[in-house]
Amino acid sequence: MERVLSKEVEKYEGKDILLQGRIQNIRKLGGVSFIILEDRAGSIQTVSNKDTDAKPGDIVEIEGLVKKDERAKGGYEIKISEIKVIAPCDIELPYDLSKKELDLQLAKLLDKRVLTVRHPKIKAIFKLYDVLLKAYEIVMREEGFTEIKTPKLLGSLTEGGANFFKVKYFDKEAYLAQSPQFYKQIMVGAFERVFEIGPVFRAEPHFTTRHLNEYISLDAEMGFINSDEDVRKELNIILKKIFEIMKKDGKESLEYFGIKLDDVPENIPTIKLSDAKKIIKEKYGYEVSKDTDIDPEGEKSICQYAKEKYNSDFIFVTHYPWKDRPFYTMPADTKQDESLGFDLLYKKMEIVTGSQRIHTYDKLIENMELKKVDPKGMEYYLETFKSGMPPHGGWAIGSERLIQLILNLASVKEASLFPRDVKRLMP
Amino acid sequence: MERVLSKEVEKYEGKDILLQGRIQNIRKLGGVSFIILEDRAGSIQTVSNKDTDAKPGDIVEIEGLVKKDERAKGGYEIKISEIKVIAPCDIELPYDLSKKELDLQLAKLLDKRVLTVRHPKIKAIFKLYDVLLKAYEIVMREEGFTEIKTPKLLGSLTEGGANFFKVKYFDKEAYLAQSPQFYKQIMVGAFERVFEIGPVFRAEPHFTTRHLNEYISLDAEMGFINSDEDVRKELNIILKKIFEIMKKDGKESLEYFGIKLDDVPENIPTIKLSDAKKIIKEKYGYEVSKDTDIDPEGEKSICQYAKEKYNSDFIFVTHYPWKDRPFYTMPADTKQDESLGFDLLYKKMEIVTGSQRIHTYDKLIENMELKKVDPKGMEYYLETFKSGMPPHGGWAIGSERLIQLILNLASVKEASLFPRDVKRLMP
Repeated sequence: MERVLSKEVEKYEGKDILLQGRIQNIRKLGGVSFIILEDRAGSIQTVSNKDTDAKPGDIVEIEGLVKKDERAKGGYEIKISEIKVIAPCDIELPYDLSKKELDLQLAKLLDKRVLTVRHPKIKAIFKLYDVLLKAYEIVMREEGFTEIKTPKLLGSLTEGGANFFKVKYFDKEAYLAQSPQFYKQIMVGAFERVFEIGPVFRAEPHFTTRHLNEYISLDAEMGFINSDEDVRKELNIILKKIFEIMKKDGKESLEYFGIKLDDVPENIPTIKLSDAKKIIKEKYGYEVSKDTDIDPEGEKSICQYAKEKYNSDFIFVTHYPWKDRPFYTMPADTKQDESLGFDLLYKKMEIVTGSQRIHTYDKLIENMELKKVDPKGMEYYLETFKSGMPPHGGWAIGSERLIQLILNLASVKEASLFPRDVKRLMP
Repeated sequence: MERVLSKEVEKYEGKDILLQGRIQNIRKLGGVSFIILEDRAGSIQTVSNKDTDAKPGDIVEIEGLVKKDERAKGGYEIKISEIKVIAPCDIELPYDLSKKELDLQLAKLLDKRVLTVRHPKIKAIFKLYDVLLKAYEIVMREEGFTEIKTPKLLGSLTEGGANFFKVKYFDKEAYLAQSPQFYKQIMVGAFERVFEIGPVFRAEPHFTTRHLNEYISLDAEMGFINSDEDVRKELNIILKKIFEIMKKDGKESLEYFGIKLDDVPENIPTIKLSDAKKIIKEKYGYEVSKDTDIDPEGEKSICQYAKEKYNSDFIFVTHYPWKDRPFYTMPADTKQDESLGFDLLYKKMEIVTGSQRIHTYDKLIENMELKKVDPKGMEYYLETFKSGMPPHGGWAIGSERLIQLILNLASVKEASLFPRDVKRLMP
């Protein structure tokens, strides 16, 4: 018999079918067992009059008759004629598959990831993640971007040289890419608009709920802009479309977490960082330290401001200090005071970093000198700017952090299947 | 004035428009300059009666009148009123932008990648690559697969322990993933069918036209199979759909290379490796060495056989020796002689490796012992099999190699934007 998926049963009313999947729950009621079976398409109620050895977590095969039943979820129930355990679950699961919550501490949740990914709540997170990836793929192409894949093994240190992981590469030393920055800029020279979905590696010794040492960055770079505003406008369009897709295709996941996903505003409010700092101080009585551009507490306050004043979950903060941004960031003025670098904050923290980039060779060299960046190993990158580059800019979205914030997860690690932090390299 | 893209000009017939892009070619004919302008949407002929300083490679802005002209490619021509160089190309390009071929040795082509990616021929390769990524994304979801992203930094050596790159990870040692094998199997336990598009890293000291030390693998893993044949059948369906999309959306790239892309057969021919070796010897007079499963010369012969006998560019070769396959491969028999591992060959070489995997704990341990694989560091992976895993299998497609073979490129490195080999870590 050919396997039938749980969502297809209505086509087989009154017929015998074969189902396969994992048992999510068994309830016994007066000699009758109600068995919830999960497969990749969803779940279905099956019912047996005979006793069974099968238990939650087991992989089983069920033969049975499809009957209409208004009381069952989905409107159909399977009357089991035979149930066979294909692969038993021989260890005790650290959670109850039939419960909505796992009730596990973060460390345990991640230590037992191999098992916890099977719980409906965790599956809901990564189903939404799948939709985010799909949405980025679709929307970026609609907007004229070409997908590229660039190397993660680099021959030279770039972007200042801090927080890199070193790799032994045959008889040489290599470094893991912190971002596809140089490559995506180079590719603007060929395709104007490019995007990349790929891992980035950050050797930052952080222990926070918002950092990962390896994560998936949704990158983009676009040419022929007139200003940094053009970059933000395009990002606004793209995010709006992505959220529409997530709302639709991620419905079940969002409902699991009780999230009503708000639309992205037509025009996300925009504020200069210097003004933001003033507002944070005057309105919320918090002073961001002078040594930093903004801190988590400041981000929270400015997000609160965006919500109160513009009813927006999003706010662009622009004109970050030139000194705090990488050398390729376009300065906003001749005094090298502010830059055309911006962040996009969502709900309570930064989810996107972007900027207009320097596109002329002379200015790039000037900025590298001012920032004391050694051009050694960057000759290929610099050649790009000697050979005709349009004004351009781009962004990087932290994909796990976006999912974290959409679903209000306590830690970004919950939005990474197998997260990496200073102490965690397994599973 | 708002920018108009080259493919949109027909909407503006008789109107003045603004174009932006790179000059691909200038022909002067009796005081008139014909300037081919390239932008992300395509190219368009513009014409000027005045002399201009602009030259091929420059990034320019052109204002002009849209006129119908049957002689121009696309049917329209722009009569230039003003041309402005936004960013000049100040170095000599190592090729002629207006010629169909670049005429460069591979080393030069790659050393100057920053510039060569701008040539129409190289752009055609990576436009097709973009279509391949899009097609895999679309088709895998159509077939019920969930997209996953798994870590590239590993805490322990897996799959036997050879050819790994080592990473200094804070105070520990880490390794770069050779494949997402363990993780995709684990995820079958949650989603049944999963796929991943991501980099893999191979510390193989090869200097060949078919190997890269970092490449993008198109991975998949599927549960609830009845046999290894089910895996091949699904792969066959997927490849057929992907080729249909490539044929349509990759039309321009295929035409550039003069490729007529054949359909993937409904049923790709399948042959056991032992039979293949006999045929190679009897029909083509070549004997594959006893020490190897198959070699490049053998692959070529068996592909020739598939073409001659079945008129197929594809052939599945099955039942690879158990000793040549990783420990998680399902043995074909109790003597551990053959395995349920297979390759898919295309045109002249292997593009996919796949197999049915072992899905029970006891058999996995037995095979690890026979292969002398140390289970240390694999406890999390092994736990998966104690807790109920359906029969499953999967594959990995080398994306660059597939593009190489479709376009008949001499080296796989031509199909990687910034390839990595033993000596090449830059650009």
